[in-house]
Amino acid sequence: MKDILEVIAELLEQKKYMAVKDIISGANPADIAGFFEERFGDDFEEQREFLILFRLMPKDLAAEVFSFMNPDMQKHLISAFSDAELREMLANTFIDDTVDLIEEMPANVVSRILRNSSTGARKAINAILRYPKDSAGSIMTIEYVSLHQDMTVGESFAKIRRVGVNKETIYTCYVTENRKLVGIVTVKDLFLAEEDDRIGDIMETNIISVDTMEDKEVVANMFRKYDFLAIPVTDKDGRLVGIVTFDDAMDVIQEENTEDVTKMAAIAPNEDTYFRTGVLKHARSRIGWLLVLMISATITGMITTKYETAFDALPVLVSFMPMIMGVGGNSGSQSSTLVIRGLALGEIHFSDFFRVVFKEFRIAIIVSTILALVNGIRIYLMYDHDIQLAVTISLSIVCTVIISKLIGAMLPMLAKRCRLDPALMASPLISTIVDSCSIFIYFNIAMVIFGLR
Amino acid sequence: MKDILEVIAELLEQKKYMAVKDIISGANPADIAGFFEERFGDDFEEQREFLILFRLMPKDLAAEVFSFMNPDMQKHLISAFSDAELREMLANTFIDDTVDLIEEMPANVVSRILRNSSTGARKAINAILRYPKDSAGSIMTIEYVSLHQDMTVGESFAKIRRVGVNKETIYTCYVTENRKLVGIVTVKDLFLAEEDDRIGDIMETNIISVDTMEDKEVVANMFRKYDFLAIPVTDKDGRLVGIVTFDDAMDVIQEENTEDVTKMAAIAPNEDTYFRTGVLKHARSRIGWLLVLMISATITGMITTKYETAFDALPVLVSFMPMIMGVGGNSGSQSSTLVIRGLALGEIHFSDFFRVVFKEFRIAIIVSTILALVNGIRIYLMYDHDIQLAVTISLSIVCTVIISKLIGAMLPMLAKRCRLDPALMASPLISTIVDSCSIFIYFNIAMVIFGLR
Repeated sequence: MKDILEVIAELLEQKKYMAVKDIISGANPADIAGFFEERFGDDFEEQREFLILFRLMPKDLAAEVFSFMNPDMQKHLISAFSDAELREMLANTFIDDTVDLIEEMPANVVSRILRNSSTGARKAINAILRYPKDSAGSIMTIEYVSLHQDMTVGESFAKIRRVGVNKETIYTCYVTENRKLVGIVTVKDLFLAEEDDRIGDIMETNIISVDTMEDKEVVANMFRKYDFLAIPVTDKDGRLVGIVTFDDAMDVIQEENTEDVTKMAAIAPNEDTYFRTGVLKHARSRIGWLLVLMISATITGMITTKYETAFDALPVLVSFMPMIMGVGGNSGSQSSTLVIRGLALGEIHFSDFFRVVFKEFRIAIIVSTILALVNGIRIYLMYDHDIQLAVTISLSIVCTVIISKLIGAMLPMLAKRCRLDPALMASPLISTIVDSCSIFIYFNIAMVIFGLR
Repeated sequence: MKDILEVIAELLEQKKYMAVKDIISGANPADIAGFFEERFGDDFEEQREFLILFRLMPKDLAAEVFSFMNPDMQKHLISAFSDAELREMLANTFIDDTVDLIEEMPANVVSRILRNSSTGARKAINAILRYPKDSAGSIMTIEYVSLHQDMTVGESFAKIRRVGVNKETIYTCYVTENRKLVGIVTVKDLFLAEEDDRIGDIMETNIISVDTMEDKEVVANMFRKYDFLAIPVTDKDGRLVGIVTFDDAMDVIQEENTEDVTKMAAIAPNEDTYFRTGVLKHARSRIGWLLVLMISATITGMITTKYETAFDALPVLVSFMPMIMGVGGNSGSQSSTLVIRGLALGEIHFSDFFRVVFKEFRIAIIVSTILALVNGIRIYLMYDHDIQLAVTISLSIVCTVIISKLIGAMLPMLAKRCRLDPALMASPLISTIVDSCSIFIYFNIAMVIFGLR
C-alpha cells in the first residue's frame, strides 16, 4: 500500500494526472483519504492540485473518500464545490455519513448541504438529527433492504440485486408488515434455502432490536454480545425506522472508551484528536477539574494545620505524609477504576453494591496487611528500632487502604445510581477525597500512640 | 426476550421439557447462554437439570450456545460429556472458538478436546496455538470461502451455497492462486455482477491484508479505519492462512481498552471479569504496584526531611503540601492519559515527540497561570495579606504544573520507544515521580522567598 502512495506522489510531481487517476481508482478509499491528509495537511496552499486530484476520481469513489476525510478537509472541499458537484456527491453518500458531516459543519455549510440534498434524504437527515445525541436513533441509517413475508427467496435475491448498491448493508434483510418489523433474514439464510421457499417460512422471528431512544453505548455492547452485523432500530410502536451497523458500533465503542479514559483523568471530554485540538481548547478542557481539585485539596491542607502541635513535636511525621496519601490515592483509584470499567461493560450493576463493597473490603485487608508489614519492618530497621513510629505508620496504612478501597468502590456505583457518569468518580476525585481521610486518620493515630495532645 | 426467559423458567419448574425445547430452539444463542449462567450461576447443584436442558437443544444450536458460555461452565459441561458427545459438539464449533476454549481449559481437558477433534481441525488448532499470544495469527480463523479466478459468478454462488454453512463469514470471499492471495470479492460484488462474469475480472486486486505476526491491536485498528467485515491474514510468502472477522476485532478492542485502563490504574492486567476473579487474585494483581509506589513515595518523604528547618520556622508551609502535590499529580496524569490514548489509537507517534512536548508546554503555561492567580488571590485574602506566602505558592504551582505536564507527556512516549507499554506510565507512576519534583520545587522556592537557610 505504502508504495502505491509513493508512486502517486511521484506522478503528481511530474503532473501525470491521468496515470494518477488510474492508480487512485484502484486504491482503498480510507487510504486515499489518508494520502490526502498526509499530502495536504492543514494548510491548503496546494489547493489547486488538491481539487484537481479529487475531481479525477470517479464520483462514487470520490464520495467514499470524502466520508473518510477529517472535518477541516471536508469543509474546505464543500466551499470549493459548485452546487451541482455538491448535489452529485451527496447523492452518492450514505445518509448516516451525511448526518455525521452535518454534525461537524458550521451553520452556513449545513444549510448548503441540506439545500443540495434530495427531498427524501433531507427528510431522513432531519429525522435522525432530531434524536438525542447519544441515542440509537442518532447513529442509525435508513438505507437497509426490506423484504416481505410472501416473497420467495428468488424474488428476494432479485430485489437485493436491484436495490443493493445504495444500501449500507445487504447481508441482513428486514421483513416488514405495515412498517412493523416481523422478521429478519440473512443472505446466508437465503443461500441455504431453496429458490421458491417463502421468506415468511425461513425468517428468524425472535427479533433482537433496540428502541430509537436507547443509549448508543448499550447498543454497542449488544454488538459485542451477539456478534451481529447490524441491529434494527424500532420506534415505540415496533415500526422499523432504521438499522445500526457494526462499523458504527465499533466507532461508538472506541469513542466511549476515549471519553471514559479522559474523564477518569479529570479532563472534560472532547471529540477531536489530540493534535486537532488547539492549545486553548486543551487548556479549557483541563482547567475546570484542576481548579475544583485544587480547592478541595486545600481542605486536606486545613486538616493538617490542626495537627501543628504533632509535627512540631515530631517533625519526622511530616516526611511520611506523601507516602500515606500516595498509598491511599493509589488503592482508591485501583478500586474505582475496576468498578467504573465493570459498570461500563455491564458486568457490575448497582444491585451488586454490597457484593462489591464486601469484596473490596476483603481485598483491602490482604493488601494493606502486606503493605503495613513491609513498611513497618523497614521503619523499625531504618529509624533506630522506633517501634512507636513503625506501629503508627503501619496502622495508618491499614486504615487508609481499607477506607480508600471502600470509597473507591462505592462512589462510582452511587454516581451511576444518581444518573451521573461513574467515570467522573475516578482517580483524581477519589485521591483528593482519600487524601483528607488519610491525613485525618494518620495524625489521630500518631497523637494517640505518641500520647501527644 | 426477557419474557421468553421467564417462560422457560416457569416451564422448567413444571418439568415441561418438550415445551422448553420448542421455545429454546427459537432463541438467540447468546441469550440462552446468558440464561444458563443466570439460572445455574457458579454452583452446579442443579447439574442434572442443566445437562437435560443442554441436551434438549439441536446439536448445532448447542454448539453455538456452548461457545458463548463462560469457561467454568464450559469445563463443567465437557467433564459431563461422553466422548461421542464432545466429538459431535466440536464438529459443530468454529475453529477459532475451539482455540479460545483450549486457551481457557486446564491441560487434561485440552488433551481430551484435541483427542476428540478431527485430524484437520487438530492440525489447524495446533497451527493457530503456535502463534504468539498477541498476534493476528492467534485470533484468526481458517474457515473462509476461497474462490478461483477462472470461476464464474454463477459457479461462485454454487460454491458458497455448498460450503457456506460451515464458514465463519461467507460475505467476503478470497481468490487464491497456488495458495497465494490474489484478490478479494464480496457477495455484494457478486450480486451486482452478471452470472457469467469471471471472478478474475471483477475481483478487487488492491488487497489489504495483515501478516500472521502483526500485533492484534494494530489489526483491530485497521477494522476501525477501513470498516471491513474481515481482513485476510497471510504468511511471509503472501500465502493466505486465515482471516480475522470483525466480531473478533471488536473483542480485541474492548480487551485492549480494559487492559490499558487497568494498567493505567496500577493494576496488573487480568483477563477475567471483576466478579469471576477471586479476592486473592485481585489482591495479587494490585499489591505489586502498590509496593513499588509506596517505596518510591518514601523518596518524596526523604526529600521533605531536608527541609525540616523550613517547616519548623513556618509550619503553615506543611499545610500547602497536599495541594501542591495534588495539582502536580493531576496535571501530570491529564497529559499522560491523553498521550497514552493517542499512542494506542495511532494518533500520536514517537516522531511527534517535540510537537507534543511543545504543545503541552503551552497548555501548561495557560493552565498554571490561572491556577496560580486564583490561589494567590485566595491566600492573599485569607492569610492576612501575606504576599510572600501568596507568591511562594503561586510560583510553586506554575513550576509544578509545567514540569508535571512535560513529564506526563514525555514518559509514555519514551516507554513506547523502549517497547514498553505506555499505559504503565500513567497516573500513579507519574504522580509519584511528580510528587518528589513538586516538593523539591516548593520548598526551594519557599526558602529563597522567605530567606530561610
